[in-house]
Amino acid sequence: MAGQVTLVDGGTVTTPRGFQAGATYAGLKTFAEDKLDLGLIVSEAPCSAAGVYTQSSIKSPSVTVTQEHVKGGAVRAVVVNAGIANCSVGHQGYLDAQEMTALAGQKLGVEAAAVAVCSTGVIGVELPMSLIRTGLEKIELTGGGGHDLARAMMTTDTRPKEVAVSFTVDGRQAQMGGVTKGSGMIHPNMATMLSFLTTDAAVDKDFLDTTLREVADSSFNMMTVDGDTSTNDTLLVLANGLAENPPINANSPDAPIFKQALMDVCVHLAKEMARDGEGATRLITVEVLSATNVTDARKAARTVASSNLVKSAVHGSDPNWGRVMMALGRSGAAAEEAKVDLFVNGVCIMEEGRPVPFHRDAVVALMRGPEVTFRLNLHLGDGEATAWGCDLTEEYVIINSAYTT
Amino acid sequence: MAGQVTLVDGGTVTTPRGFQAGATYAGLKTFAEDKLDLGLIVSEAPCSAAGVYTQSSIKSPSVTVTQEHVKGGAVRAVVVNAGIANCSVGHQGYLDAQEMTALAGQKLGVEAAAVAVCSTGVIGVELPMSLIRTGLEKIELTGGGGHDLARAMMTTDTRPKEVAVSFTVDGRQAQMGGVTKGSGMIHPNMATMLSFLTTDAAVDKDFLDTTLREVADSSFNMMTVDGDTSTNDTLLVLANGLAENPPINANSPDAPIFKQALMDVCVHLAKEMARDGEGATRLITVEVLSATNVTDARKAARTVASSNLVKSAVHGSDPNWGRVMMALGRSGAAAEEAKVDLFVNGVCIMEEGRPVPFHRDAVVALMRGPEVTFRLNLHLGDGEATAWGCDLTEEYVIINSAYTT
Repeated sequence: MAGQVTLVDGGTVTTPRGFQAGATYAGLKTFAEDKLDLGLIVSEAPCSAAGVYTQSSIKSPSVTVTQEHVKGGAVRAVVVNAGIANCSVGHQGYLDAQEMTALAGQKLGVEAAAVAVCSTGVIGVELPMSLIRTGLEKIELTGGGGHDLARAMMTTDTRPKEVAVSFTVDGRQAQMGGVTKGSGMIHPNMATMLSFLTTDAAVDKDFLDTTLREVADSSFNMMTVDGDTSTNDTLLVLANGLAENPPINANSPDAPIFKQALMDVCVHLAKEMARDGEGATRLITVEVLSATNVTDARKAARTVASSNLVKSAVHGSDPNWGRVMMALGRSGAAAEEAKVDLFVNGVCIMEEGRPVPFHRDAVVALMRGPEVTFRLNLHLGDGEATAWGCDLTEEYVIINSAYTT
Repeated sequence: MAGQVTLVDGGTVTTPRGFQAGATYAGLKTFAEDKLDLGLIVSEAPCSAAGVYTQSSIKSPSVTVTQEHVKGGAVRAVVVNAGIANCSVGHQGYLDAQEMTALAGQKLGVEAAAVAVCSTGVIGVELPMSLIRTGLEKIELTGGGGHDLARAMMTTDTRPKEVAVSFTVDGRQAQMGGVTKGSGMIHPNMATMLSFLTTDAAVDKDFLDTTLREVADSSFNMMTVDGDTSTNDTLLVLANGLAENPPINANSPDAPIFKQALMDVCVHLAKEMARDGEGATRLITVEVLSATNVTDARKAARTVASSNLVKSAVHGSDPNWGRVMMALGRSGAAAEEAKVDLFVNGVCIMEEGRPVPFHRDAVVALMRGPEVTFRLNLHLGDGEATAWGCDLTEEYVIINSAYTT
C-alpha cells in the first residue's frame, strides 16, 4: 500500500515548506498579454536536485549550464525567462546563461552553481542582459509567489499550469508542488516544455534521479513522439527535506508513496499541457491495452495521439476511426488487425478487426465533449500505456503562421 | 554519360507504346466533384513488373493481393478504385480484392493473376462489389485514356498528376509514363499514395525491382518521415518491352539512362503530390548538404519538411528559421550547431551556427512565392538529400475535420 496522495487546493511550487518564488516583467515578452517574463524559485535549505533534458543535438546553452549545475549537486534555485530561448546565438548564449545564474545567485545569497537557468521563446536572438539584470533586482520573493512564477513562464500558453499534492512520509506530512509551461501540442517540439517540481520531502539524490526519469517516461514523454524534443526542454525537481523525514531511497518504505506523488503531479501537468495545446479545444487520451510490451504500447499510444489526421478528425467530432487504425499500423508496434478492439469514449467501434455497427450520432455527440478517449486493445501481451494530446484546429495554424513576424 | 531524358508534352501512362487505359463513375466516390472513381490500365503485351508497398502492419487486402500477383510475375494490368480503401473490413476485403482482379481479367481477357488491384478512400467500409461489377463493364479502354485514369484515382487531390518522358535505349526511342494520387501532405500517411508507372522499354525484372526501390528512396520516400505509410500505399511499374531494345539489366550500357528516366518521373510526381497537398499553397523543398552520410541527410531533410511548426511558418511567409534548427536538432541526424549554414530561398540566414543579419522584408517577400527552399549545410561529410513538403494551412484542418461525416 502506497498510502494516499491528496490534491492541495490552489497548490503551486511554493506550497511545500521553505520555497519562495516571484516574478517580474523585464521586457523580453512582447507577444503575450500576461506581462511577466522573468521568475525565480528558491529553497531556504539546500536541496537534492534532479533533471531531465532535451535530447536535441541543437541545445540551448541555458540547458547546458543547468545540466552542469545539477550535476554539481548544489542546486536550490531556478531562474527562468520567457520570450527568448537563448538558442542558436553562438558562444554568447553560454556566457549569458552563466551570467543569469551569477546574477540570481548574488540576489539570493547563494553560489552561481546553486542556480539552474531555463529559457523559452524565440530562437536566434540574444538575451538582453541589461533588461535581465534590472528585472532580477525588481523580483520580490514570497511564500505565495508560485502563481506569479507560473504566469512568468508562459509563452503561447493560455493559462498558468500548476498543482500541489500532500502525502505522508514516515508519519510526517510532506508536500509536492509543480508548475509547467508549454503550448502543449502533442510533441514538446511545438514549443519548449519547462517544468519545475518542488517538495519538502527529504529524498536521496540517486533515488530522485532514477524516479524522475521513470515518471517522466509515463507522463511528460507520453505527450511526445520519439526524439521530438525542443532545444530547451527541461524538467527539474528540488527536494529540500524540510519535512524532516529520513531521506527516501529505493529501499525506503516511503519510496512507493513518493513515486506516486511524483507521478500524480507529472501526469496532472502533462494533461494540462495537452489540454492547453495551441488552438486546442479538446483533450485526446489514447489508452493502449494488451500490447506485446510497454515499449510497443507507448509507441502505439503516442503515434495515434500525434497523428494530424486523428487530431483533425477529433476537432470535427468525426468518428473516423480508420485513421486510428492507420496510425496504429504505422506506429511500429506489433499489431494483428484480426485481434484489435477499438473504443471511442467507451463505445465499441471495432471488435477483432471488424467494424461494429454503432450509432453515429451518439458517438459524434460524445466526441463534442471536452475529452475524447480512444482505447485500443491489441490482445497480444500485457503492455499498457496512455498518451495525451489535443485536437488540431485552424487556430493552431493561425497562431503558428505568425509568431516572429 | 546517361544520355538525355526529355519531357513529353501532355504525357501520361498511355504515352508509352501498347498501353491503354480508361475510367468510369461506379458510384464509390461521393465527396469529389470529379466523378470518375474506377479505372483500368492494361498493356497489350506481357510485362516485367515491380512494386513497392506500405510498411504498415495494418494493410489493405488490395495490397496483399497485388503483392501476390506481382510476385507471381505475370502482371500486365491494374484496376484501381477511389472512395473506399478496402481496409479493416475483415476477410471480406481479401475476397473483394480477388474478385476485382478476376472481373478485370475477364474484361481484358487475361488471368486474374495478371491484374494488380489498388484502392484508396475511407477505411472500414466494404466495397460495393455490384457497383464495381457494373462499373468495370462500362469502362472503355483507349490509347488516350491515361488522363481519365488519373482523374479516377483522385480523392482529396485538387488535380490529376501525370507525366511522361522519352529517352533512347540501344538506339531506339523508349517512353515512360507515370500517374499518381495522394493528398500529398508530407507524410504519405495523410492519404493513400498510389503511383503507377508504365514504360515500353524492355527491362529485366530483377533490375526493375532493385532500381524501383532505389529511386523510391530518393523520390516518394522523401515525402515521408520514417515508417509513415498508409494502409494502402502502392507504387507499381510495368515494362512491356515494345521498344524492342535488349532487356536492360544492371550491366547494360542503358541502365543509367533508364534509372535517370525513372528518377525524373518519380521526382516529378513526388513534387506534384507535395505541391497539391491538402490545403497547401506552397511547395517546400529542403536540401541537406554535407551531412555525415545519406541516411542522416535524409533524416534531417524529412524532419524539417514534415515539422508542423516549419510548415506553419512557411504558410505565414515567416522567416522563423529557429524552427528549422529545432527540427534539425530533433531529427536524429548528427549536427554541430557551430558548423551549420542555413539558406532560405538562397539568402544566407545563419553561418557557422550564428545568425547573419538579413533583410527581413526581402526574405518575407521571397517566401510569398509558390516555392520555399531551405538549404542546410552541415559541414560534416558528403551525405546529401532533398525532401519535399508543403505548408500547413487552416484549409488542411477544415478538409480533415470533416471527411467521413
